[in-house]
Amino acid sequence: AASTSEAVVATSVLPSWQDTAAKKSIVDFVARVTQAGSPDYVPPAERIAVFDNDGTLWLEQPAYVQLVFTLQRIHELAPQHPEWKTEEPFRSVLAGDMKGVAATGETGVAKLLAATHTGMSTSDFRATVHDWMSKAQDPRFKRSYTQLVYQPMLEVLQYMRANGFKTYIVSGGGVEFIRDYSERVYGVPPEHVIGSTAKYKYSFVGGVPTLTRLAQIDNVDDGPGKPASIEHVIGRRPIAAFGNSDGDIQMLEWTTAGPGARLGVIVHHTDAEREYAYDRTSKMGKLDKGLDEAPAKGWVVVDMKQDWKTVFPNATQ
Amino acid sequence: AASTSEAVVATSVLPSWQDTAAKKSIVDFVARVTQAGSPDYVPPAERIAVFDNDGTLWLEQPAYVQLVFTLQRIHELAPQHPEWKTEEPFRSVLAGDMKGVAATGETGVAKLLAATHTGMSTSDFRATVHDWMSKAQDPRFKRSYTQLVYQPMLEVLQYMRANGFKTYIVSGGGVEFIRDYSERVYGVPPEHVIGSTAKYKYSFVGGVPTLTRLAQIDNVDDGPGKPASIEHVIGRRPIAAFGNSDGDIQMLEWTTAGPGARLGVIVHHTDAEREYAYDRTSKMGKLDKGLDEAPAKGWVVVDMKQDWKTVFPNATQ
Ligand SMILES: [Ca+2]
Ligand SMILES: [Ca+2]
Repeated sequence: AASTSEAVVATSVLPSWQDTAAKKSIVDFVARVTQAGSPDYVPPAERIAVFDNDGTLWLEQPAYVQLVFTLQRIHELAPQHPEWKTEEPFRSVLAGDMKGVAATGETGVAKLLAATHTGMSTSDFRATVHDWMSKAQDPRFKRSYTQLVYQPMLEVLQYMRANGFKTYIVSGGGVEFIRDYSERVYGVPPEHVIGSTAKYKYSFVGGVPTLTRLAQIDNVDDGPGKPASIEHVIGRRPIAAFGNSDGDIQMLEWTTAGPGARLGVIVHHTDAEREYAYDRTSKMGKLDKGLDEAPAKGWVVVDMKQDWKTVFPNATQ
Repeated sequence: AASTSEAVVATSVLPSWQDTAAKKSIVDFVARVTQAGSPDYVPPAERIAVFDNDGTLWLEQPAYVQLVFTLQRIHELAPQHPEWKTEEPFRSVLAGDMKGVAATGETGVAKLLAATHTGMSTSDFRATVHDWMSKAQDPRFKRSYTQLVYQPMLEVLQYMRANGFKTYIVSGGGVEFIRDYSERVYGVPPEHVIGSTAKYKYSFVGGVPTLTRLAQIDNVDDGPGKPASIEHVIGRRPIAAFGNSDGDIQMLEWTTAGPGARLGVIVHHTDAEREYAYDRTSKMGKLDKGLDEAPAKGWVVVDMKQDWKTVFPNATQ
C-alpha cells in the first residue's frame, strides 16, 4: 500500500519534474513539515517559502526583463527628449551600443532607471508596465515574457500553497514590475511580492492624493538586503527558500540556518537547448559561490536539464 | 423578515458597539462590498482594511506604550551605563524629569531609542520586548498593556476578516514591538503588521547568520509615510482605514479617495471615565485637523463614550 501511494504521489505531484533527487528533496521536506505528529511539524502560520524571481521563476537571459523594458522605454520616450541624442547613457542606448551603456557604469544605469521608472505616479507607472508587458515579446522564444516562466516552478508554488505555505517572491527587481503579473501568472498576490523600491512622495496632484515615484532608492532587495527585507516585511524567518544566483546566498543562509527542517534550493541553468546554460561567469544571474557552498549547506541544486521534464508552460518539447 | 434578520445582525455583529450610526456605517459598508451582485462588490483579494495601532486598537495615554518600554529599559540598563548619570537625556530619564527629557528634543529621543532599540540582534530585541510585555502593567488600570486593547475594535478586526478582509496594522510605532503580541491579541499575523523600522545589518556573528539592528531609521511610518508604506508593502489601495489622530489623515485620504465604496473611521477619545478624553491639544494622538475634515470627507467619527458599550475586554463596567 505504501508503494502504491508513493507512486501516486510521484505522478500527481510536481508532474513537470523528473523523478530525481531534486523532486524527492522538495516532496520529502513538505511531507516532514506538514505531517501532524512529525518531529519536524510546522504550523501553517509559520510555513513561509520565499522565491527569487529572475532566473528562479522566469527567464533572465540574455538580459533581465526589467532591463529590456528600460531600454525599450528609452526608445519610446526619445522623441520627447531630443537632448538624449548627445547625452550618455541615452545616446548609446539609442544607438544600440551596449558597450557604450556599460561604460557609463552605475551612474548610467541610475540615469536610465530615473528616466523610465521615476517622476510619475505609482498608478501611471503601473499602467505603463502593464501595457508593455502585454505587448513585449522575447525575440528567441517568440513569446510574451509572462509565458517564459518555469512550469516546474509554477508547480512548486502551487504545491506549497496547497500544503499551507505562504509563497513570497523576494526579488532584486522592482516590486511593481513583478506585481503587474504575479497574481495571474504565479498566483502570488501583490502583498506577497517583496522587491527593490523607490521612495514615494505623497501629495495632492490636481486635488487627488497621489504617490509620486522619486529618483531615490528606498530599498535594494539583493544579497544581504534579502534577509533584511524578509524580516522587515514578513517578520518571520522562512523555512524554505528558492534562488538561482549568488545574490540569493544570504537569503538561503538565513532561511536554512533556522531550527527544524529547512529547504534551500538553487536552480542551476544547465540547459542551453531548451533555455540557457550559465553560471560562474554570467553577467545576469552569476552563480559561483553558491555552487561551491551548496553541498556543505545542504542546499539542493536543481539541474534544469536533468531534473525538469519541461521548462515553459505548454511548450512543444 | 427583513426586520427580523436585521435585528439578528444588530445583536450578533459587533456586540460591544451601541446600535448607533457608527456601527451602522461599518456594517453597511461591509454588506455593500461583500454582497455578490452589488454594484459596490469587491472581490476578496481586494478587501484590504488598514488599522492604526496606538489609540485605535489599544490605549496610548498617558504615554505611548513603546515610550513606557523605552523609559523603563533605560532604568534597567542604567547599571551598565554609569555615564548616563550625567549624560542627557539619560540623566533626566533616571531622575524622572520628563520636562528635562522633552527639552532634549528629537536628538534626545533618538538617543533613547538607539540605547534601547538598536545594537542587538533582531531575535534578542524580540526576546527583550516579549519579556517586558509579559510583565509590564499600566498603573491606572492595573492590567498588562495587551489587556488594554479595545474590545469593540477586536470585534471589528474579527468581523472584517470573517467577511474576507485582510486586516493590516499600519502604525507609526516600531514594527517588532507590535508583532510581539499582534497575532495572539488581534489575530493579525506578523506579516500583516507594517510599522516604523530600523535598518538591519546582515552578518555572521559567532558563525550564525544574524540581523543586527542599526541606529539608522529605515522607515518612519507616520503621516504621509503611511500611504507610502501601504503601497510598498501591500501594493494595493485599501478600501477601509481606521485611525485616531492627525497622523492617520493621509492614510484615510489615500484609502477613501479610491473608486467604489470606501470606509474611513476615526476613533475619537471622549471617555475620560472608562479610558481618556483628548483630541486637539493632546501630546499623544493629537486629533485636530482630522476632526475638522471628517464631515466633508465622509469619515465616520466614533464617539467612544456614546458608541462603545464596553472599552476593554472582560472589563467590569
Ligand atoms: Ca535571480
Ligand atoms: Ca494613533
